[in-house]
Amino acid sequence: MKVGFVGLGTMGGAMAANAARAGFEVTAWNRTVSRVDAVAADGVRGAESPAAVAGASEIVILMVSDTPDVEAVLFGSRGVADGIAAGSLVVDMSTIAPSATRDFAARLAERGVAMLDAPVSGGSEGARKGTLSIFVGGAAADLERARPVLETLGTTITHVGPIGSGQAAKAVNQVILAGTYLGVAEGIVLAMKAGLDVEQLVAALSGGAAQSWVLANRSGRMHENEYPLGFKVALHRKDLGIALQLARETGAALPVAAICEALEAGLVGRDHGDDDVSAVARVIRELSGLPG
Amino acid sequence: MKVGFVGLGTMGGAMAANAARAGFEVTAWNRTVSRVDAVAADGVRGAESPAAVAGASEIVILMVSDTPDVEAVLFGSRGVADGIAAGSLVVDMSTIAPSATRDFAARLAERGVAMLDAPVSGGSEGARKGTLSIFVGGAAADLERARPVLETLGTTITHVGPIGSGQAAKAVNQVILAGTYLGVAEGIVLAMKAGLDVEQLVAALSGGAAQSWVLANRSGRMHENEYPLGFKVALHRKDLGIALQLARETGAALPVAAICEALEAGLVGRDHGDDDVSAVARVIRELSGLPG
Repeated sequence: MKVGFVGLGTMGGAMAANAARAGFEVTAWNRTVSRVDAVAADGVRGAESPAAVAGASEIVILMVSDTPDVEAVLFGSRGVADGIAAGSLVVDMSTIAPSATRDFAARLAERGVAMLDAPVSGGSEGARKGTLSIFVGGAAADLERARPVLETLGTTITHVGPIGSGQAAKAVNQVILAGTYLGVAEGIVLAMKAGLDVEQLVAALSGGAAQSWVLANRSGRMHENEYPLGFKVALHRKDLGIALQLARETGAALPVAAICEALEAGLVGRDHGDDDVSAVARVIRELSGLPG
Repeated sequence: MKVGFVGLGTMGGAMAANAARAGFEVTAWNRTVSRVDAVAADGVRGAESPAAVAGASEIVILMVSDTPDVEAVLFGSRGVADGIAAGSLVVDMSTIAPSATRDFAARLAERGVAMLDAPVSGGSEGARKGTLSIFVGGAAADLERARPVLETLGTTITHVGPIGSGQAAKAVNQVILAGTYLGVAEGIVLAMKAGLDVEQLVAALSGGAAQSWVLANRSGRMHENEYPLGFKVALHRKDLGIALQLARETGAALPVAAICEALEAGLVGRDHGDDDVSAVARVIRELSGLPG
């Protein structure tokens, strides 16, 4: 099957390489051309525009940064919509607003083109290893068309509802993470201020109700005040912005997610946007008089 | 070994019964006498006062509600201090303030009596099954004296530091839970408002970074708006009050724990204090126009 990729960043580059190595005929475009050269050895062929990618592909996968980027590569000059044949399928794996997703799908449908939203979790490591979790919104039949290539990118593929639902599911994921990260950050800071042995305490807590992936995998970073990637603060802040917009549209009140987004905006403004998201602990540490 | 229990509530009653069934000679006192009768068949003998329990025991275990209760059963009229022999050991398994714990230990030390603080997590189910997690503060040698009986009460016994450290560790546990419960509650409410299939979504999220004991075991309650015990809102609120007091004393700033304590105080005031702590979701649901 002929598969196109638009966007070859840390995530998209690794995903395109995985699809090509699995035997799909992969054509790709990226704003920065050197990213295309980087995956040529994996069998990915470059194209001159998103339109050219679409013209060479039955399924076009998008993996770009935010809502305006998806709109630009779909409907901008020499965008996917300029080159795509009726009957093709667009799979947007970026994390963007659910409402914009429904709008883009409607505009593609006018040209006879189907769309899935399929944002992922699992980060750069999951992209490299092909172990992403993929939340899919759209028609079940379209998911079945895309499934063979999605299975080269991720290990858990969940159809969560109609178009836009994948983005809403991703938003829920980021909201749960906001509370969990802040809870663990506050706990670790209290433990440090109270003079406890943090490492031993985390081991003791891990068998009980406080257990979480964040406690097991990120509390050490918060204690050491070192935040290698991971998943960038700036991206989690962007995703929480999407979640809070969805919350406004649907009438959900999310106080902790709102606080987390505000604290992360401060971190981005202080040049900590490229830290791992566990760096929300910097703020709790600083508020408590610890180096942050 | 002769072991005394002061306080036979849901937790203490089950714990005294476990110790007696394991072969310890258990003497117990409770404010409400019927609670003593309830564990007589397990081999627990009643005594007329905390002083009488102490007179009959080498190790006296306290399991009462809050800091003033511990002070009353230790130093009030016919309290433990009136009957205890020098060389004995008090093990306070209640959840109370770390600073008061250090004060009580100092006052007992004047009488030649050692003390451990050993609060637990694992709830009423853990107390019944003898699978509690126990966070122990105090001298290592005193823990070794108490270990045989503690091993009949819990499966994880962690020595976290000097006297008061067990209470501080428990406080950290409750702070982490505050963020995790609110994060999951906000995520579930957003999922409901966005029309997602919550059960399927929770399954999809459970393989990733949002994974936690709370997500796995309490998100269903939040979705159904049913909050059977579990661990009472009123007790988590009390414990967060202790944690926030410790935070004030040590200079830790815990914004999410403070919000959670405030929301729980509201639930207690509206007769939801006996719900499971997952009922913090009631507040997020109500703020978002869902039945709460």
